[in-house]
Amino acid sequence: MYAVIMAGGRGTRFWPRSREKKPKHLLDITSDRTIIQETVDRISPLVQPENILIVTGRKHARELVRQLPEVPVQNILIEPVRRNTAPCIGLAAIHVMKRCKDDVMIVLPSDHGIADPAQYRKVIAAAAKAAEKGNALVTVGLKPTSPHTGFGYMEGGASAGRIADQPLLRVKAFREKPDRKKAEAFVKSGNFFWNSGMFIWKASTILNEIERFLPDLYSGLMTIKASLGKSSEAKTLSATYKGLASISIDYGVMEKAKDVFMIPASFGWSDVGSWDTLWEISARDKNGNAATGGSQAIFENTENALVYSPKKLVALIGMKDVIVVETKDALLVCKKGQSQDVKKIVDLLEAGGENQLL
Amino acid sequence: MYAVIMAGGRGTRFWPRSREKKPKHLLDITSDRTIIQETVDRISPLVQPENILIVTGRKHARELVRQLPEVPVQNILIEPVRRNTAPCIGLAAIHVMKRCKDDVMIVLPSDHGIADPAQYRKVIAAAAKAAEKGNALVTVGLKPTSPHTGFGYMEGGASAGRIADQPLLRVKAFREKPDRKKAEAFVKSGNFFWNSGMFIWKASTILNEIERFLPDLYSGLMTIKASLGKSSEAKTLSATYKGLASISIDYGVMEKAKDVFMIPASFGWSDVGSWDTLWEISARDKNGNAATGGSQAIFENTENALVYSPKKLVALIGMKDVIVVETKDALLVCKKGQSQDVKKIVDLLEAGGENQLL
Repeated sequence: MYAVIMAGGRGTRFWPRSREKKPKHLLDITSDRTIIQETVDRISPLVQPENILIVTGRKHARELVRQLPEVPVQNILIEPVRRNTAPCIGLAAIHVMKRCKDDVMIVLPSDHGIADPAQYRKVIAAAAKAAEKGNALVTVGLKPTSPHTGFGYMEGGASAGRIADQPLLRVKAFREKPDRKKAEAFVKSGNFFWNSGMFIWKASTILNEIERFLPDLYSGLMTIKASLGKSSEAKTLSATYKGLASISIDYGVMEKAKDVFMIPASFGWSDVGSWDTLWEISARDKNGNAATGGSQAIFENTENALVYSPKKLVALIGMKDVIVVETKDALLVCKKGQSQDVKKIVDLLEAGGENQLL
Repeated sequence: MYAVIMAGGRGTRFWPRSREKKPKHLLDITSDRTIIQETVDRISPLVQPENILIVTGRKHARELVRQLPEVPVQNILIEPVRRNTAPCIGLAAIHVMKRCKDDVMIVLPSDHGIADPAQYRKVIAAAAKAAEKGNALVTVGLKPTSPHTGFGYMEGGASAGRIADQPLLRVKAFREKPDRKKAEAFVKSGNFFWNSGMFIWKASTILNEIERFLPDLYSGLMTIKASLGKSSEAKTLSATYKGLASISIDYGVMEKAKDVFMIPASFGWSDVGSWDTLWEISARDKNGNAATGGSQAIFENTENALVYSPKKLVALIGMKDVIVVETKDALLVCKKGQSQDVKKIVDLLEAGGENQLL
């Protein structure tokens, strides 16, 4: 069994900690392990390190090798350019085929938090069994804990019985990020689930589906596959990949395919998508204040603050709902609930040519 | 004519910038000159540097010498211990007597801001004339711009005519820091003035008054005076000064003396007493945001913020009424209006033995 970890994200939303050279998954935001280390740690009881493939960009490869000494260097697959998830997954699939003709591959985002990894592994193992037995496309549907408008949803369809103690459902429909009203109706119905972005299938299964729905991508992948292990590999990959269309696996394959299944699950998932999310999943004192990353903080008449400042004492006086992040060269002070606007700051810095702060 | 600058303050209210080794008057808080440099610059057109005496504590002497190269080293008078303003002024007075038998001395706090220094000098020069002519105790009464409850007030008495184009009044009474209601009545009456803490008198005049109202202090001062210039000077000063009672010149002399005068004045005075005050006197953009000390700041959806962070970009998102101060080893994020609680942080650090942060 293989795991494919997609590590192509930019993670501007964790500025000033996340930078072009260090996107979110390379940072130790939720513990003293980085998020990708946690992702590898979490799947390791199911998949041997030799079978963990990481797909990433050239400028993050070296840091990944440093952070993941147990993963063989040749398992770090470099995308010459970003082309969204369909090409990324296709690239991983041809590497799996090349190595072992065919096997189940567990496709995982690199940047999620999971509170209950044991339960997570039970769900993944069951999904792998379903993918192997039925040549099916299997996903994980997360039971929504709020009417979140930032995620895609999946509607549950007919039951496909149970597998390894987990329920298996057909996916009736994919729904893009809904507005608030729709999201509330989804949650109320009890039959809608967050699209986790985790996919479990055999390499041959997904390549067949890509061949059917994305023939240009398939043809490009076959060109790349033919060059694997040859002296022309790097050149072929670079030339071919650049010509691929940028398209997500959800839009390109999942929404069109017939035999799509999900396991509805709850294992304390969070997307760690912003400083706000981090406050939600952090340990907090009785006033709701979180000092993360070993920060030394004094909270005076202060509530619901998130502090990251490992090198420097921070004193907060009279603050409510604030995020304070201190790094070597930049400082962020942000009202909680507005951390999505961190991206605006990054855009401003980019426009101003402040490349050293990106 | 002499100027005596009282530079004994601790200035904990500007933590984390102000430290035990660098109280407020040694910091460049309001401009690129330090507050004591501004004080010296401001009085210099009236008083030659050789006649400017600075009274301070031992641990700040070296920094004063560094910051004020125009002031002769021997003009830095060291108080062995803090004993409030009456002994401090008495010590300066005996030094003036020793140097030139007698002269007018302009006693100034070291840590005020003045928006209109030309007008300030007119007032001081007129006060000096009054002090010389009448052997009087002269003060400056600041026309109140708000019913401030943090200052002492002086009630104006009978007019004593005009001197050098400035009105001169008798002081009818001193009033300690009033409550809000009383302060409002004071301001409404038009006849109450803030006690500026500036005093103008001849050295002989104030020593006579000290002899009358504070005979123990006077006797101590005479002991010290007898030792000036002798090998026993330091030892005598140290032994005698420690034995002096801690008392303010207002309480010890001014409130009891008969011939006390004031010049009512307006020259854009501010006490620069806290981060809140600094915001009030700083240049601000149209959203009320002030980036001081050459700070590079991005204000996104932010109003009425004060930022000090000369070494590091600060981005604020969605903040209102906030003070952000970044130094080498500490960071303050404080709600505007609560900066008096900075002292609580200093107390906590002291209690916790965090001496490197004091």
